[in-house]
Amino acid sequence: MTYCVAVSLPGGLVLASDSRTHAGPDQVNTFGKMHVMLATPERFFVLLSAGNLATSQAVRTQLFHDLEFEQRPNLESVATLSEAADYLGRVNAAQRLRLNETCEHEEAQESMDSTFILGARLAGRGTGIFVVHPRGDYLHASEQTPYLQIGELKYGKPILDRLISLDLSLEDAARVVLLSMDATMRSNLTVGPPIELLIYDAKTPEASRHMVFDAEDAYLRELRHGWHAQLAAALGTLPPLPSQGRRPEVSPSG
Amino acid sequence: MTYCVAVSLPGGLVLASDSRTHAGPDQVNTFGKMHVMLATPERFFVLLSAGNLATSQAVRTQLFHDLEFEQRPNLESVATLSEAADYLGRVNAAQRLRLNETCEHEEAQESMDSTFILGARLAGRGTGIFVVHPRGDYLHASEQTPYLQIGELKYGKPILDRLISLDLSLEDAARVVLLSMDATMRSNLTVGPPIELLIYDAKTPEASRHMVFDAEDAYLRELRHGWHAQLAAALGTLPPLPSQGRRPEVSPSG
Repeated sequence: MTYCVAVSLPGGLVLASDSRTHAGPDQVNTFGKMHVMLATPERFFVLLSAGNLATSQAVRTQLFHDLEFEQRPNLESVATLSEAADYLGRVNAAQRLRLNETCEHEEAQESMDSTFILGARLAGRGTGIFVVHPRGDYLHASEQTPYLQIGELKYGKPILDRLISLDLSLEDAARVVLLSMDATMRSNLTVGPPIELLIYDAKTPEASRHMVFDAEDAYLRELRHGWHAQLAAALGTLPPLPSQGRRPEVSPSG
Repeated sequence: MTYCVAVSLPGGLVLASDSRTHAGPDQVNTFGKMHVMLATPERFFVLLSAGNLATSQAVRTQLFHDLEFEQRPNLESVATLSEAADYLGRVNAAQRLRLNETCEHEEAQESMDSTFILGARLAGRGTGIFVVHPRGDYLHASEQTPYLQIGELKYGKPILDRLISLDLSLEDAARVVLLSMDATMRSNLTVGPPIELLIYDAKTPEASRHMVFDAEDAYLRELRHGWHAQLAAALGTLPPLPSQGRRPEVSPSG
């Protein structure tokens, strides 16, 4: 499995991904799932991917190819954020179709699906994040829910729901994102390190940071232990349960 | 969907369940999923159920029937905790088979599955919790992981993993269980109130408590808000991210 998450805040973007891939129970490997496609003072595009590795790579290869050989549209030519998401969607759908056609068996087709998170900034257009599905359709985050997830997303969702809001600093959002990733790794062993974290500062792009945390990273351990200690302390401050309990009664028999 | 959770501690058991069931998108109803089957000074058995409502009810009906008409084994005759789980497993498998046989279509068969959590105490044998699967096999909680879940379990798992341990009081475990339920309800609308909570005190069974929390319950709201405030405060105390970040580099093109 994969877990990728992105948060869009007024100050910029925070994105994180794990690095575990498997093509079967005994074929577990490490592949980065976060790829910066373009980073200029005017334009910034980063992709997170979940799903079929061949499709993900084929999509990225075509995006780079379109840039290099100036095939339009490409990431230099798109004029808006949604045009970029739309372009990625069409490439994703086309690559999926192409790879499906080379498969003989119906059952193999499902596994060619790839889903992306696109993090983007265009000068004068601001920043945005999109989820782009295998058939090319896409959606963007909202002010009410300024985050997106792909892959194994359930374990890491409650902490995002509780803590992510538009008034968070990039630094705080990054720590929430790492805790969301940590919750997922604890519960699903097929999501695993190294963890990549990217903090894109929209106002000062040169202050952006890209970090990689290995399995035994001291900071991740410190963060996890600090969080555990805080939660355990918080538990003690919660209001006591109402006292109007009663003895458990036997249910009426059918 | 359903979410049920049970914790087994040296001092007793904590169990919680939601009450939403649906037989289709426009057929959402409220059915309790927690049923105390027997509560005497010597014996205590409670069932939580997830899955097909007809099968769950048929299993409970047979358990009551076996008690009433003294068909052995029954919940009064079983001598050990695992004998109780085994008995429940055989009844569950038999009812599933019986109901499957009355179904005409292959596709309908899947939906007759029911899964149970059994919480049990036998004087002289202590307390225990078991998950009992549709085919009758069962497993019990361990000291390393003293909790069990059935139904929509992923959203509510991280907080259990972080906070449930054998040294927790029943009261603290109950609050963690309610927070796990709250996380699940926030993320999946098909898990819904009223929430039933049962705290079984093994040392003083008459001090056990059975509570029901409605959608707008003041205590649940207080608990949720208190937890949010504590998490937000905890976030500020976490260690700052390492500063050795670097600018995001464009990934090598394929």
